[in-house]
Amino acid sequence: MYRIVLLRHGESTWNQENRFTGWTDVDLTEKGVEEARAAGRLLRREGYTFDLAFTSVLKRANKTLNLVLEELDALWLPVEHSWRLNERSYGALQGANKADTAARFGEDQVLAWRRSYDVAPPPLAEGDERLTMNDPRYASLPRAQFPRTECLKDTVVRFVPYWETVIVPQILAGRRILIAAHGNSLRALVKYLDNVPDEDIVGLEIPMAQPLVYELDANLRPIKSYYLADEETIRAAQAAVAAQGKARS
Amino acid sequence: MYRIVLLRHGESTWNQENRFTGWTDVDLTEKGVEEARAAGRLLRREGYTFDLAFTSVLKRANKTLNLVLEELDALWLPVEHSWRLNERSYGALQGANKADTAARFGEDQVLAWRRSYDVAPPPLAEGDERLTMNDPRYASLPRAQFPRTECLKDTVVRFVPYWETVIVPQILAGRRILIAAHGNSLRALVKYLDNVPDEDIVGLEIPMAQPLVYELDANLRPIKSYYLADEETIRAAQAAVAAQGKARS
Repeated sequence: MYRIVLLRHGESTWNQENRFTGWTDVDLTEKGVEEARAAGRLLRREGYTFDLAFTSVLKRANKTLNLVLEELDALWLPVEHSWRLNERSYGALQGANKADTAARFGEDQVLAWRRSYDVAPPPLAEGDERLTMNDPRYASLPRAQFPRTECLKDTVVRFVPYWETVIVPQILAGRRILIAAHGNSLRALVKYLDNVPDEDIVGLEIPMAQPLVYELDANLRPIKSYYLADEETIRAAQAAVAAQGKARS
Repeated sequence: MYRIVLLRHGESTWNQENRFTGWTDVDLTEKGVEEARAAGRLLRREGYTFDLAFTSVLKRANKTLNLVLEELDALWLPVEHSWRLNERSYGALQGANKADTAARFGEDQVLAWRRSYDVAPPPLAEGDERLTMNDPRYASLPRAQFPRTECLKDTVVRFVPYWETVIVPQILAGRRILIAAHGNSLRALVKYLDNVPDEDIVGLEIPMAQPLVYELDANLRPIKSYYLADEETIRAAQAAVAAQGKARS
């Protein structure tokens, strides 16, 4: 039996401002820093230790991971970064306020962009400064593959090869793995592991900075999965995330 | 021409308490955190960017590196950790106050332990809790090789193979390298690069959290080396380190 832990980053400045973030590299808020530390303390209290961590190339996930590792007294842990663990690209919506976008396009359209499996937001246009393909962190990503926008299906398609070729061999080698990533890259993993139907993935909310444990059998099929925090905490955190897509009243 | 940057960690709690640290995993002080951030800002102002960083498995160096990377907006950077970049083991002196030790054994003996090339402090005895060979971060270090004490020569002997087999290939591949480590592991590197005679290495003080640049030719021989900060800042920082070995008056 194998056990891995998934962790979505803590609150970011654009979570707080209710803006679509995607590949925009926004920082954690003070609250997000505290959430990350609390996640680390919870893992420590529950006796979790790790051999290896995976994260994206976005600072809200990197910093969440570092804060967790600091609480676990494991800043020496090997960490692998990959853009394949990045948040879903939100295309031309990146930077827009979610409530404003809902008011402009309608809540149903925003819900489709946010939570459907195969509907991508409008793409970033050529020359848009949000196309950060010249950033050195994307040097290993062919420019033509740099995402202009993504639906969740696109995120699954670029994440799964990394899971299969990089993460799975480490799990099978017996290494205890922590993955610190984003709402949609983790949703992609959960969809893949639990074989969630396309239409059901819409309703799946992964709360911020709440360690999510998967126990896997010898074939890496889930035996069970659970959050370390109590149910009430998780329900409140999920409701907070779900409420972000509403137009302001 | 290649350029690498060496960085000693910022002030630790035991630097502040004037205690021998060695492999003891003490944290940065608030001042040390600020020193690390300042080093990061200095590197950013001077336009330095990196492709890869190397550090020890001790949190004062790991945290210094993370703070520098945060200031450089490069928390996504690949980082390699190795115990071969750890501080020199101070053996049975680890934890002792430097001034108390000077009062007990004499300043000359303490200076010999601290700054001679081949005089090691008394070794840790079998069963001493400071022999942390069961810590998972040392899983790749055969127990018989876990250092009971080290002179600087021992530190050179365990550091140079890592330099030659892991760091050098990355430099030759054109990667811009940052090494965040410790007074004596960096002294080992400086001795090796500059071919400093055994008797001269005693007087060489590497100040804390001051980026030290080495420009290397195609054979990795130093062309020149310099601190990024102004001379007065460096002299004051070096004097502060050198003064630690004195008995209290």
